[in-house]
Amino acid sequence: MSLGRIVKLQALITKPLRRAYSTAPELTQIRHNVKRSDYANLEDKDIAFFESIVGKRYALQEDLQAYNVDFWRSVRGNSQLVLKPGTTQEVSAILKYCNERKLAVCPQGGNTGVVGGAVPVFDEIVLSLTRLDKILHIDEITGIAACETGCILENLDNKARELDLVVPLDLGAKSSCHVGGNVSTNAGGLRVVRYGNLHGSVLGLEVVLANGEILDLMSDFKKDNTGYHLKHLFIGAEGTLGVVTKVSILCAPAPQAQHVAFLGLPNFDAVLKTFKSAKLNLGEILSACEMIDAPTLDASLEHFKLNSPINGFPFYMLLETSGSNGTHDMEKINKFVEIGMERGEIIDGTITGEARKMQEIWKLRELAPMALTKDGYCFYYDLSLPLRDFYSIVEVMQKRIGTLATRVTGFGHLGDSNLHLNVSCPAYTDELHHKIEPFLYEYTHKLKGSVSAEHGIGFIKKNYLKYSKSAEAIAMMRDMKKLLDPKGILNPYKVLN
Amino acid sequence: MSLGRIVKLQALITKPLRRAYSTAPELTQIRHNVKRSDYANLEDKDIAFFESIVGKRYALQEDLQAYNVDFWRSVRGNSQLVLKPGTTQEVSAILKYCNERKLAVCPQGGNTGVVGGAVPVFDEIVLSLTRLDKILHIDEITGIAACETGCILENLDNKARELDLVVPLDLGAKSSCHVGGNVSTNAGGLRVVRYGNLHGSVLGLEVVLANGEILDLMSDFKKDNTGYHLKHLFIGAEGTLGVVTKVSILCAPAPQAQHVAFLGLPNFDAVLKTFKSAKLNLGEILSACEMIDAPTLDASLEHFKLNSPINGFPFYMLLETSGSNGTHDMEKINKFVEIGMERGEIIDGTITGEARKMQEIWKLRELAPMALTKDGYCFYYDLSLPLRDFYSIVEVMQKRIGTLATRVTGFGHLGDSNLHLNVSCPAYTDELHHKIEPFLYEYTHKLKGSVSAEHGIGFIKKNYLKYSKSAEAIAMMRDMKKLLDPKGILNPYKVLN
Repeated sequence: MSLGRIVKLQALITKPLRRAYSTAPELTQIRHNVKRSDYANLEDKDIAFFESIVGKRYALQEDLQAYNVDFWRSVRGNSQLVLKPGTTQEVSAILKYCNERKLAVCPQGGNTGVVGGAVPVFDEIVLSLTRLDKILHIDEITGIAACETGCILENLDNKARELDLVVPLDLGAKSSCHVGGNVSTNAGGLRVVRYGNLHGSVLGLEVVLANGEILDLMSDFKKDNTGYHLKHLFIGAEGTLGVVTKVSILCAPAPQAQHVAFLGLPNFDAVLKTFKSAKLNLGEILSACEMIDAPTLDASLEHFKLNSPINGFPFYMLLETSGSNGTHDMEKINKFVEIGMERGEIIDGTITGEARKMQEIWKLRELAPMALTKDGYCFYYDLSLPLRDFYSIVEVMQKRIGTLATRVTGFGHLGDSNLHLNVSCPAYTDELHHKIEPFLYEYTHKLKGSVSAEHGIGFIKKNYLKYSKSAEAIAMMRDMKKLLDPKGILNPYKVLN
Repeated sequence: MSLGRIVKLQALITKPLRRAYSTAPELTQIRHNVKRSDYANLEDKDIAFFESIVGKRYALQEDLQAYNVDFWRSVRGNSQLVLKPGTTQEVSAILKYCNERKLAVCPQGGNTGVVGGAVPVFDEIVLSLTRLDKILHIDEITGIAACETGCILENLDNKARELDLVVPLDLGAKSSCHVGGNVSTNAGGLRVVRYGNLHGSVLGLEVVLANGEILDLMSDFKKDNTGYHLKHLFIGAEGTLGVVTKVSILCAPAPQAQHVAFLGLPNFDAVLKTFKSAKLNLGEILSACEMIDAPTLDASLEHFKLNSPINGFPFYMLLETSGSNGTHDMEKINKFVEIGMERGEIIDGTITGEARKMQEIWKLRELAPMALTKDGYCFYYDLSLPLRDFYSIVEVMQKRIGTLATRVTGFGHLGDSNLHLNVSCPAYTDELHHKIEPFLYEYTHKLKGSVSAEHGIGFIKKNYLKYSKSAEAIAMMRDMKKLLDPKGILNPYKVLN
């Protein structure tokens, strides 16, 4: 039995989101007062050259709003040219030319990022990888799949499922995000607790460097200890060190059964104990471990008129199992829940293996960010924190902010120590903003946490990098950038200041 | 129940090995005709400085053979000074000085590598990390452990097991190899099929650069997307880009039950089908998947007077499961074996959960390399190959070499496409050597395989890097080396030519 993704989040959220942000945002360069660097300006001869490479049809100069504005409508660039190369060689020819001319380039995948990393800030040429969408091969025995960068994650996953495999990455934007974009942002998502991060599962990359050189780091093997492991430099580099054009990734065996447990817990200490028990008792079948606090659940219930199978608890946990034997899995879950209830760590809950019911439960979690936005405006954070401080930071913020906010809530990938902390309010105010920042980042810094667990730095967070990385590390990042892209043409104004 | 490592390989093999290679090997610089680079020569003032840093007691100038010769006695350097710093700051002071003076340094962990990466070639100062052996902390809920670089893998694992966790890495040299050495060589081993490689499980590093700068890339989090993911540059760099001084690693929940199945199969096609079936039917509990051919098993049986529970098959598979419920695991294994036997893919086999019996079975596999050495001399290779060619290369070599060899055999980590191909003979001959190489590397190159799946490049394989990496990739490696170690003081004569 092949199990499809339970919630097609993007399909669910696009409409309300688009309504909420129906007008185009202010230009990023104005809103954030950015100064354009000394890149060359696009001239007619440039366009003629690019047309000779990709063809007139794939050198777009009109209706570029979808490429200039991000999915969350938080940033807006002013690019006058979108190029859609059809081969790695075309990407190479474009970059070689841009590097020689010092024309800035913004690589773009599915444009589903949340930190403004994939849209231009000024007039960078948008290099859309949409046409590089081929699945190259999938080996049904080893589970190793290779595809071009613009392949949509869901398409690769669907193809893998035909061979009883799954792509080891799952996130809300699955139906539109690109595999290359996932790699470039080291996308996390819902199943990291099971399958680990992309540094573990990406086996090879093909990358085009700023000067147009094609770097073949593809591999069809899990093990290859020949020289420096260069591919990792491009995983999570957000298109600033090179343009990923091909990806080889290790798929996992498809689970034969899935179950979801939705649990009500009396306090955060019980949440931690339940997580520990889940690791021990569900061990190898645990595939998601999410925490949701009461104010978050309330927002989902209110704004989306959802029903929760249980109510009235300060904390909820959503656990998912994926295994090769449904009967065994159900026995393990029952035992795990019984132990938790005996100990008073779990008060109430529901367990289901029915697709429809699992979907309903996942909605409670996955619609949370949208629900909070519907309060009016939401300051939304993505932190890694020590588990002992995982929730106390929410309480600290609740106390600090008081009635200025509609809700101060926390939910997230507890299994990965990844908290999404949210402050919703009727409308954006500077007062509230300054009440949160930089306090929250300083607080995170003191706990040696990460100010961006999974979203990346992009444009929006580049001033906060210093809270999670030492001056020496940032200096080395600059050295890498200088080495690989000396003219700085690749995705400028992103990641590094 | 906490399960210890089944076979303490090194304890088993040290004696016969030491006997086999009781005389010191020829100096590497002579045997391989290497030219010393223009590093400074060690002077009295240098020794005085180093003594002022680490103390007289930890600046050794006598009885250095154990530091100059590798575990396999295949290479031998001529270092006159071994330094044993006790803190990161001491490592930093040493490197800063060496960099200024242009004194070459060979970082050394447990000295269990097999490619001559951890011993000097000339008179490099050996930087032994033995004293940096502290376990810093282990979080029983998240499973995240941090230790100093010289911590012995088994010590960290034992400590983790006290908290119902396991280090996600297991290899024969566990009782003497260092965690820092594991990281620096991206060690693979027996459980990659379950836990993936170190790029996935290492969460943070502290590294001292060639100029003495301390780079803090430590993290106690699974997710951290703030800037370039620099730590991966040092994983598998074999001490040539920096000296790893601290490691943070994600441990897995300790299995509550382990089982081993040892199976006899009629042909290699059945081996592949059985692997596929294991992935499907054992899925999440599969923790090792090894293949052993008949000539390899014969060598183990002959030289170590072992008994095999089954005999007379061309191929054997050793599968191990690790799960959270022994009854469930046993049911899954029984079903998997039944399916295989019904299909005629598995002919005979034994399944056990008894520690002693599992140990006996593991010996058949783990003593194989030693057994082949006892034929007299053994050419030993470590390849990643497409599974369709995984065994045909052994057959090709058998045909090519004919009666020149005692045995041409193949065994290895089938689950990771990692073949150990071996050619044993009464004594080393140039004729046999040239019959194997470069043919085998060219063959591997044609299949786009890896000439070093898990052992690394070190000194011994540096001429073969080109068979697995493009000229562009090697050029970029050189750029990285130049950037991070411009004077080339760190582990010279290794990895890159």
